[in-house]
Amino acid sequence: MAKIADIGPDSVRFVCMWKKDDICKMAVLAFNIESESGKARAGNIQTDHGTIQTPIFMPVGTVGSVKAVTQQQLKLDVQAQIILGNTYHLYLRPGTEVLEAAGGLHQFMGWDRPILTDSGGYQVFSLAANRKIKEEGVIFQSHIDGSKHLFSPESVMDIQRSIGADIIMAFDECPPYPSDHNYAKKSMELTHRWLTRCFDRLAETPDKYGYTQNLFPIVQGSTFKDLRTASCEFIASKNAVGNAIGGLSVGEPIEMMYEFTDLCCSILPANKPRYLMGVGTPWNLLECIDLGIDMFDCVMPTRNGRNGMLFTTQGVINIRNKKWEKDFSPIDIGLPSEPSQYYSKAYMRHLFVAGEILGLQLASIHNLSFYLWLVGEARKHILQNTFTAFKQQMLPILQQRL
Amino acid sequence: MAKIADIGPDSVRFVCMWKKDDICKMAVLAFNIESESGKARAGNIQTDHGTIQTPIFMPVGTVGSVKAVTQQQLKLDVQAQIILGNTYHLYLRPGTEVLEAAGGLHQFMGWDRPILTDSGGYQVFSLAANRKIKEEGVIFQSHIDGSKHLFSPESVMDIQRSIGADIIMAFDECPPYPSDHNYAKKSMELTHRWLTRCFDRLAETPDKYGYTQNLFPIVQGSTFKDLRTASCEFIASKNAVGNAIGGLSVGEPIEMMYEFTDLCCSILPANKPRYLMGVGTPWNLLECIDLGIDMFDCVMPTRNGRNGMLFTTQGVINIRNKKWEKDFSPIDIGLPSEPSQYYSKAYMRHLFVAGEILGLQLASIHNLSFYLWLVGEARKHILQNTFTAFKQQMLPILQQRL
Repeated sequence: MAKIADIGPDSVRFVCMWKKDDICKMAVLAFNIESESGKARAGNIQTDHGTIQTPIFMPVGTVGSVKAVTQQQLKLDVQAQIILGNTYHLYLRPGTEVLEAAGGLHQFMGWDRPILTDSGGYQVFSLAANRKIKEEGVIFQSHIDGSKHLFSPESVMDIQRSIGADIIMAFDECPPYPSDHNYAKKSMELTHRWLTRCFDRLAETPDKYGYTQNLFPIVQGSTFKDLRTASCEFIASKNAVGNAIGGLSVGEPIEMMYEFTDLCCSILPANKPRYLMGVGTPWNLLECIDLGIDMFDCVMPTRNGRNGMLFTTQGVINIRNKKWEKDFSPIDIGLPSEPSQYYSKAYMRHLFVAGEILGLQLASIHNLSFYLWLVGEARKHILQNTFTAFKQQMLPILQQRL
Repeated sequence: MAKIADIGPDSVRFVCMWKKDDICKMAVLAFNIESESGKARAGNIQTDHGTIQTPIFMPVGTVGSVKAVTQQQLKLDVQAQIILGNTYHLYLRPGTEVLEAAGGLHQFMGWDRPILTDSGGYQVFSLAANRKIKEEGVIFQSHIDGSKHLFSPESVMDIQRSIGADIIMAFDECPPYPSDHNYAKKSMELTHRWLTRCFDRLAETPDKYGYTQNLFPIVQGSTFKDLRTASCEFIASKNAVGNAIGGLSVGEPIEMMYEFTDLCCSILPANKPRYLMGVGTPWNLLECIDLGIDMFDCVMPTRNGRNGMLFTTQGVINIRNKKWEKDFSPIDIGLPSEPSQYYSKAYMRHLFVAGEILGLQLASIHNLSFYLWLVGEARKHILQNTFTAFKQQMLPILQQRL
């Protein structure tokens, strides 16, 4: 069902919910700030697959599955609003042919809410073997079977068209940390030239499945103020529907991560969503919301969950610890999510000690539910203009090791 | 809430549903045959944790978890009515101290329907190292850490009391297949002496958690008609509330398995549930229901599921096969279970090829849902007296490799 909504100064547009058999008119992504509390913003992002309330955390579903969580659990327990897929991994498996035959990733995996795909830039640099960076793109060997591939701005846009995410990321070069200024500058400039090619390629190709796919550019510049500033300004000039900050949380000191996030937020447009890639812990999230970030993704809740690290409203738990052996209290008394109330710490510990798959599942669902709850609470407090007090109260509790 | 129900000739008794804070009067297990179709029976078993409709399949939750399935999925998707736990495994992890502190396995894992525990006899013989069989019991070394333990009829009854299952199994010796007649005879006689000690120990110890725990003896005798007959007669003389057939499906030819199942069913009491341990494939289940079996357990749906073998209403699928790569039809169009309708074969194949945990979960849920559906359909047809026709129709379909 389509209805016309007047969102803002940009244009009158159709707001459309995608239905499997009833593809309606497409609309570009729109962002609406409902309230601000200091630099923190509470808003909503409209996509053709539905609305996302910000600040938002996006569970990572690298290869078309948020590890160990069903799509039903994602909806009902985690209450995820948007998830991530990864272009590098999806390109290798199942591949664009299968995804196109399925009608896109939404159809393939059975997720009818928004999806964002990372461009694969980071994976090409961190996972693939024998990579060669050229002006054209990156030649690399698959970490799975050693086969050779080329990723260029154009091919990555095409692959992301095939995957069919609502938000697609620019193909960028991710310099290692630390990099010297010369390398970081050349890398940033390459990323900027690639960004222009991404936009060009997108403009000359149609959306593949009847809904709009929106490109977010990525700010780079390593940890050099002049480069970050230049990159933000270049990215801002592209007037994209949203902007991302890449290349942070790659090993730099935490204070530096906050410093550069703050810097980027001060330059990137205020009226567009700001996405800080690959961040972070629950306390990182609160600090960065306070700097003006609207969107986050991170493998931490799922990966660390599978390793027995539980983030709770009461603090951090290492569930294998013997102290939980006979603690029959719920995983997290403060979290209104069914699994987190239903299963006990002692049972979770047992599952992990016994190597049971259920432990991985429940830890992942719990941690993700917790992250979604946390950003939901942050949003509530921003709307009430009590975010700073909320953050100050939560930070010491969230970080304590139980 | 307790209500008095007149179940049968045995006695007027309380039928009681266990509630966490409202433990009511205990009652011994009762079995009621509602209908027969040839040798097949449709009935119900009443326990203090609720009713089980037979024929029934019992998912195996070895160490307090049906692998890769949450308790919510067990209830809602699989519609499991009773699950298995294993004494050997639970004794080692989490151990009786933790289980007692939790108030029993039901409380520990969050399962409020019936539980049956296997006595560990089979695991002691198949898993443990350095086992020594004596009249007293079996001394063995844990497969986890090499620690030494003694399992005797008395200690196994005590452990099962602590675990708190509604149905507990006798501690038996499981001879290898094949065994010579002399060995099988001595083993059977030992199992019979141990059975008497199991009953004695149970009679002198109280139910631990306020509900009745019921002992099922196990028929042995390898594949010798005279021994099986003797064992059935001995077990029948114990007048237990239910009886199990052990030591089959251990490598003998399938026709022999059916032959000995038929033999045992012809001797074991008709008015008590008959439990065939460790069986089997969907077609084994139908054949054995047709011989008079009421209860089954097997790791096949879960273990084979985790290895990519899906049992469906249309036949058997090896989901890794390339032929499923672009088959976007549901896992099983004939199975009214949400995950089996929601996810496609192509997506399942992708999950398995990519090594995703979600594949293990969905395959397990699907296969278990299928097994529960199958016994439910069998039951329906027994009630309608159309079971033979149902079986003949289903057998070729279920066994075909798709």
